[in-house]
Amino acid sequence: MKQLSVSLAILCAVATSEAFAADELQQRAQGLFKPVPAKAPTLKGNPASPVKVELGKMLYFDPRLSASHLISCNTCHNVGLGGGDLQATSTGHGWQKGPRNAPTVLNSVFNTAQFWDGRAKDLAEQAKGPVQASVEMNNTPDQVVKTLNSIPDYVALFKKAFPGEKDPVTFDNMAKAIEVFEATLITPDSPFDQYLKGKKKALDGKQTAGLKLFLDKGCVACHGGLNLGGTGYFPFGVVEKPAENILPLGDKGRFAVTNTAKDEYVFRAPSLRNVAITYPYFHSGVVWSLKEAVAVMGSAQFGIKLSDDESEAIAAFLGSLTGKQPKVVYPIMPASTDATPRPRL
Amino acid sequence: MKQLSVSLAILCAVATSEAFAADELQQRAQGLFKPVPAKAPTLKGNPASPVKVELGKMLYFDPRLSASHLISCNTCHNVGLGGGDLQATSTGHGWQKGPRNAPTVLNSVFNTAQFWDGRAKDLAEQAKGPVQASVEMNNTPDQVVKTLNSIPDYVALFKKAFPGEKDPVTFDNMAKAIEVFEATLITPDSPFDQYLKGKKKALDGKQTAGLKLFLDKGCVACHGGLNLGGTGYFPFGVVEKPAENILPLGDKGRFAVTNTAKDEYVFRAPSLRNVAITYPYFHSGVVWSLKEAVAVMGSAQFGIKLSDDESEAIAAFLGSLTGKQPKVVYPIMPASTDATPRPRL
Repeated sequence: MKQLSVSLAILCAVATSEAFAADELQQRAQGLFKPVPAKAPTLKGNPASPVKVELGKMLYFDPRLSASHLISCNTCHNVGLGGGDLQATSTGHGWQKGPRNAPTVLNSVFNTAQFWDGRAKDLAEQAKGPVQASVEMNNTPDQVVKTLNSIPDYVALFKKAFPGEKDPVTFDNMAKAIEVFEATLITPDSPFDQYLKGKKKALDGKQTAGLKLFLDKGCVACHGGLNLGGTGYFPFGVVEKPAENILPLGDKGRFAVTNTAKDEYVFRAPSLRNVAITYPYFHSGVVWSLKEAVAVMGSAQFGIKLSDDESEAIAAFLGSLTGKQPKVVYPIMPASTDATPRPRL
Repeated sequence: MKQLSVSLAILCAVATSEAFAADELQQRAQGLFKPVPAKAPTLKGNPASPVKVELGKMLYFDPRLSASHLISCNTCHNVGLGGGDLQATSTGHGWQKGPRNAPTVLNSVFNTAQFWDGRAKDLAEQAKGPVQASVEMNNTPDQVVKTLNSIPDYVALFKKAFPGEKDPVTFDNMAKAIEVFEATLITPDSPFDQYLKGKKKALDGKQTAGLKLFLDKGCVACHGGLNLGGTGYFPFGVVEKPAENILPLGDKGRFAVTNTAKDEYVFRAPSLRNVAITYPYFHSGVVWSLKEAVAVMGSAQFGIKLSDDESEAIAAFLGSLTGKQPKVVYPIMPASTDATPRPRL
């Protein structure tokens, strides 16, 4: 009888200490991360309205923003494929291969800056890049404005979306409309967000172990906050330089933006939200397995060799970051007219 | 006083005769055409179910059906752009130019057969073509099945969509699912359909004049029925051979299917539904203006030179064939796994 009560006492102590550890882990997480809100955030200097969001959605899906009339924002940032394109690096005008992997559009509104090197301060500035890049949509602002002005329904929508402006059909306003639409592409209610909101069982045992490793190993240093990343710049290869196929020598990252030696091979830490469905990984897009990507980060950033179980647990935790994907009704885009520039292939 | 009553009598007679003519025109039209139904038709041998339609929609939008993982059915048959791609002829794998203009997917379920030369008997057979064509999606049935089988959520959906089948993940079933989704892409309630249902004022004066010309000149001979075309094969250039850029000598149309001399330059008359938004025109896609396309048909098929007003009126009537475009919620496609074949560019 005595033996039984001792065993029970030990069991209770273990259970209590496990419950305590689980509480503590949850509290740590709650201090380091924030759930994705249910609604799109408001944008400084670019107020949203239903008509502006609708216009932005049309523009996001309209391939006539590209020279060929074949490539839209959604081509490389597919809202049905985790906001990316499932390519190592994107393919654009003339089937040219772009230099970097397309970052997901999902939750990108919560990033500090846009592009892998942060060269655009916000999504409006970002939107203007691919439209003009010769390896992407290969168009010019003049041609875009001419195209939009040739379509009366677009002109009317720009007038409504930018009330009071004398000449609302501009390249800047195109970008602003796209930005307010993109701000709606957020993915709340992931298992991890449910966990942050108090539902401990939203993560299973392996995911909880992965979260603990994520914190203890130091991943959170670059991948914290609401977006688990997306807000700071860090060298890729803090301790060990990754293999050259993963970190191609020719792409020095943020160095091209700042021209400062310390920014060589520095990139903006990507958000890890929805990372399980936004393969392949890294700016080079050469790693297809999340577990392998985790292992690469262990050696590159910390100089440690994560065990197979550790990489797997962290990958399982990252799987809990897949949120509710956005519901987008496909826009019906207004028809061209005889004045609309023809596609240029 | 006498003079006034005579004038009134004449006016009344004119009004009555105009009303009579308007009634007569409407009755003629009602005998020759049928409105698009509000609901998708049932398909012989391919019963629809909500899960099959949803699976078909995912497959329709999934670029992983192509070798490159870049091209989906929706690339060339964009549901937000009148079901076509705004290209003269489509652009496919490796930025190759295809031989013919992409026919609209909208209402295509009402066509007798598919493709410009009718070589596919239905939409399921059609769907298998572009997936395998080297200038389009450049894939193989084996590779598609391997891809689908590598994605557990797809396997589960195929099981639900094709209940009782032992091995439901097949290339044929992919095509069947796409077919049931495509059958939902219909555009009821166009102004012309409202007119056919009794609302005479749904067409304005010019459109009514255009309808009369459409009947009197003989256009209806090839473009009658529910789809205003899509059901019969006719030579392009019955009376006069169109210019070589419009009717390229190398493309002999249905001759390639039947190998019969009388089928040289014979094509399936396309449906004219939504024709105003499915520019450019003809299988060669070189004519961008609907009015110009009407004029070409006048000379090619009837050997007549339509006046500018006549072409314009017929084009205005054709504008009344634009129906309510389909509301499609963008599908969230299931994620690949490590077993999923990688894109082949």
